[in-house]
Amino acid sequence: MARIPTKHGRFLEEFHPGDVYRHKRGKTLSEGLFAMFTDVAFTTNALAKNRRYAQAYGFRDLVAPPGLVMNVVFSQSVEDVSENGRANLEYIDMRFGAPVCVGDTLEAESIVLGVRASSRERDRGVVHVQTTGWNQHGEVVLTYQRKVQVWKGDPDAPVSEGEVAPRDVAVSLTLPAYDPARGYRDLAHLTGDDTYIENFRPGDVFEHYRGRVITTDHVMLTGMLDNTSQVHCNQWMIDQEPERFLGGQLIVYGGIPFSLCLGLSSPDVGDNALGDVRYPTGRHTAPVFAGDTVFATTEVRALRELPGRPDLGLLDTVLRGHKFVRKGGTAERVEIFHLEREIAVKRRSHYA
Amino acid sequence: MARIPTKHGRFLEEFHPGDVYRHKRGKTLSEGLFAMFTDVAFTTNALAKNRRYAQAYGFRDLVAPPGLVMNVVFSQSVEDVSENGRANLEYIDMRFGAPVCVGDTLEAESIVLGVRASSRERDRGVVHVQTTGWNQHGEVVLTYQRKVQVWKGDPDAPVSEGEVAPRDVAVSLTLPAYDPARGYRDLAHLTGDDTYIENFRPGDVFEHYRGRVITTDHVMLTGMLDNTSQVHCNQWMIDQEPERFLGGQLIVYGGIPFSLCLGLSSPDVGDNALGDVRYPTGRHTAPVFAGDTVFATTEVRALRELPGRPDLGLLDTVLRGHKFVRKGGTAERVEIFHLEREIAVKRRSHYA
Amino acid sequence: MARIPTKHGRFLEEFHPGDVYRHKRGKTLSEGLFAMFTDVAFTTNALAKNRRYAQAYGFRDLVAPPGLVMNVVFSQSVEDVSENGRANLEYIDMRFGAPVCVGDTLEAESIVLGVRASSRERDRGVVHVQTTGWNQHGEVVLTYQRKVQVWKGDPDAPVSEGEVAPRDVAVSLTLPAYDPARGYRDLAHLTGDDTYIENFRPGDVFEHYRGRVITTDHVMLTGMLDNTSQVHCNQWMIDQEPERFLGGQLIVYGGIPFSLCLGLSSPDVGDNALGDVRYPTGRHTAPVFAGDTVFATTEVRALRELPGRPDLGLLDTVLRGHKFVRKGGTAERVEIFHLEREIAVKRRSHYA
Repeated sequence: MARIPTKHGRFLEEFHPGDVYRHKRGKTLSEGLFAMFTDVAFTTNALAKNRRYAQAYGFRDLVAPPGLVMNVVFSQSVEDVSENGRANLEYIDMRFGAPVCVGDTLEAESIVLGVRASSRERDRGVVHVQTTGWNQHGEVVLTYQRKVQVWKGDPDAPVSEGEVAPRDVAVSLTLPAYDPARGYRDLAHLTGDDTYIENFRPGDVFEHYRGRVITTDHVMLTGMLDNTSQVHCNQWMIDQEPERFLGGQLIVYGGIPFSLCLGLSSPDVGDNALGDVRYPTGRHTAPVFAGDTVFATTEVRALRELPGRPDLGLLDTVLRGHKFVRKGGTAERVEIFHLEREIAVKRRSHYA
Repeated sequence: MARIPTKHGRFLEEFHPGDVYRHKRGKTLSEGLFAMFTDVAFTTNALAKNRRYAQAYGFRDLVAPPGLVMNVVFSQSVEDVSENGRANLEYIDMRFGAPVCVGDTLEAESIVLGVRASSRERDRGVVHVQTTGWNQHGEVVLTYQRKVQVWKGDPDAPVSEGEVAPRDVAVSLTLPAYDPARGYRDLAHLTGDDTYIENFRPGDVFEHYRGRVITTDHVMLTGMLDNTSQVHCNQWMIDQEPERFLGGQLIVYGGIPFSLCLGLSSPDVGDNALGDVRYPTGRHTAPVFAGDTVFATTEVRALRELPGRPDLGLLDTVLRGHKFVRKGGTAERVEIFHLEREIAVKRRSHYA
Repeated sequence: MARIPTKHGRFLEEFHPGDVYRHKRGKTLSEGLFAMFTDVAFTTNALAKNRRYAQAYGFRDLVAPPGLVMNVVFSQSVEDVSENGRANLEYIDMRFGAPVCVGDTLEAESIVLGVRASSRERDRGVVHVQTTGWNQHGEVVLTYQRKVQVWKGDPDAPVSEGEVAPRDVAVSLTLPAYDPARGYRDLAHLTGDDTYIENFRPGDVFEHYRGRVITTDHVMLTGMLDNTSQVHCNQWMIDQEPERFLGGQLIVYGGIPFSLCLGLSSPDVGDNALGDVRYPTGRHTAPVFAGDTVFATTEVRALRELPGRPDLGLLDTVLRGHKFVRKGGTAERVEIFHLEREIAVKRRSHYA
């Protein structure tokens, strides 16, 4: 009888710059995943809630919020890239393309851009990948780079260090054309009246009003995304070597605070967005655990034109997430998430 | 840099009798929300479970149980009416109209009927609203009044006390016509055989058999409804001032025990219902917390005719919910919910 | 006023060999139930994830994994058969028929094959049933026998002991025909490349890599299946007589580890399966509670031909589930689930 200790996911020594992984499975955005992930994250944008509104704006159906698109593409890359990861370090140049509607099927692939062993700790290193996802029509919906800290399987194994240039993936946010015949003004009461592009000023910092506690439901949410990374769901593994894992407990998958911070910001900066355009950089600055209540702020950095779309403006922001950690008698505010974020926002002059 | 402390939801001093709020967003009842909320509440009515059955009865698709319709309309009113509420006091004259099927999109508005400052506590008062929801065809699906206790933002702010008359909203339960050609008897095994209108007698009190514990999943369920009231999900806020909040912990959103009590009663009084007609009054008589097991009883008050529908009878009941609370060595039964409930129930003579 | 203590589910003395129960309600596999139950169980088969892939293979839509089919049919039988059960003892000769796709509606019935009082404990006994489920076209999707230990309502009531022969239910896995024009090879990257029938050898034992903790979400998942057995959700009942119930706490419904073990095995033995054919026998060998992390192994017993399908092979396996229980300073591995399992697996020669 041959006992076969199966393994999924690569260790550091198995990555080679230039390798391309065509990710397995793909994922249809069912109404189950869509509703659960969108609503739990407190998204308020009516494109993701109200089919009548979404279709009046020219979309095929309810539109997935950017956090859901990111999560579905990202999660497909987990088995190949980060199932044996220790920490997700950075998102770079994340750009959105075709809108994703409920019922679309997304598939994805990644190319290894870089591999580097840690100079301090011989059991880990950093992998740099570029991941791209597309829909059932072959239209790119998302592309981004990320850096992730990955365990070595064997500390003595040689590592294929090196770098290759990122691919030039042509993608930019594709939106239905502006058409006054659509009757936008008759729908204007369905969104906030203080979140048009004209409402924002560089320097504004919004302390978003709402917070939401993360419960053990994070295990279920992560499973629904097909994200199989064991640090989010394998309690036994953590309990065996708690000192090896951040915080010594199940760590909440970063895509959950990512989506939640976007959602918490939604009524203040995203209610009249037609889509997110680009995240130049992002990172998880502290881990999140079950029991933490997540809050968010948005800083407006600039307002810009969107080429070819006089009906829209580009809102250039920084989205930050935080939680509070009690230390002795006081509570310390700990930043957990940092995302540079460019949003395509409606002009009041054209829509309200 | 301008820090902008955002706020959502009104405080008592911001309500004015006669004001109308067109609620934002609206909500498409996706199969995700439908399945989660219907099944978790232990609803047994086959109209909400079996498409073949629902369509044979003349409905477009699976039919939302009344608790889901209530929750989707109610939750749309939360941001405008009760995000800063302390307690929901009473539902009044809740009436159902067009049936709601999976895939329908509901939108809603509320009118402020009354505002009254508390005579005893200067930091709160009562707001009285009338909320109406309709589907994508403009057909009213639900209308009701409710009274809610709301915090003041500034204890010294003047309050616009007063009252206006409720609107006369024409709505009554709309059901597919009775048609013997539909083959009802061939489907009769799919529902209980002891829940036709002929089975009930005034004075009957049903102690419903099942109970269900509320876990921390209440946070997720509430989020799926777009109910953003902070007392249900912001653990940090509660922990800062526990004495300010009922029970000093996250309180379960009332719509969950509301739906759950309806569901628990379903196999005994609702299995052969075609719809709920009217809830003259209802209230949450004690808070519910994670860990509580909810039970329900139904008292039959009267049997009445349903004008124009000889195939149906009106079952006039009181639905009560309760839980048990340990005090010392004994357990006290605590009523948590009280709902006068009129149900349109099939006659065995026509269906079985 | 007549107080009516309702009851659902039968006690031992209410079963009679040969009785047939046409189960109530039926269940449409909504996208909500489908997504939640499939993904939480870590299923990786692309037929259940990717509509493009499933339709290219000739299925109408996303295909329900076998654990979901089992759970939906099984749960319909709970009220009639095991709502008052103490433990599910054995599954026998479980066979799959027509594939089940998202949106299908399943109904079911059971025949009582045997009733036997316990010789040692007068408050319980064993009921043996045969349950069959079919879709909206009347095609059988699943049939199986099971034995369940059921409480007596009255220890002194006489029991109708006896046995009848099982029905001969004609059912075998129905799959779309093999058609090279479908372009299977263009889809081969969406599944693992080491799970074709040619990859397996009798005697192989796969220690599946992943584990997943069961949280209190088991209460919600069980509710979504319409499984109303009180031992899974009625915390108050357990707390009143903990010694009467296995483990003295809410026990996780067996269908959850059943589905989870199938899912955990999926990347190693099920990624290129087109369906499960038959489970000759299965049983839950130890209870599972919230907090347990579930693992699984698969032993390959034999490879066989599938009559009429040269493109497929039959993988004859034993799927075992286990958890670890700490006793003093050490951890004991406890088997929780045992399932003989025959899988229809693609041949690399035809598909890759």
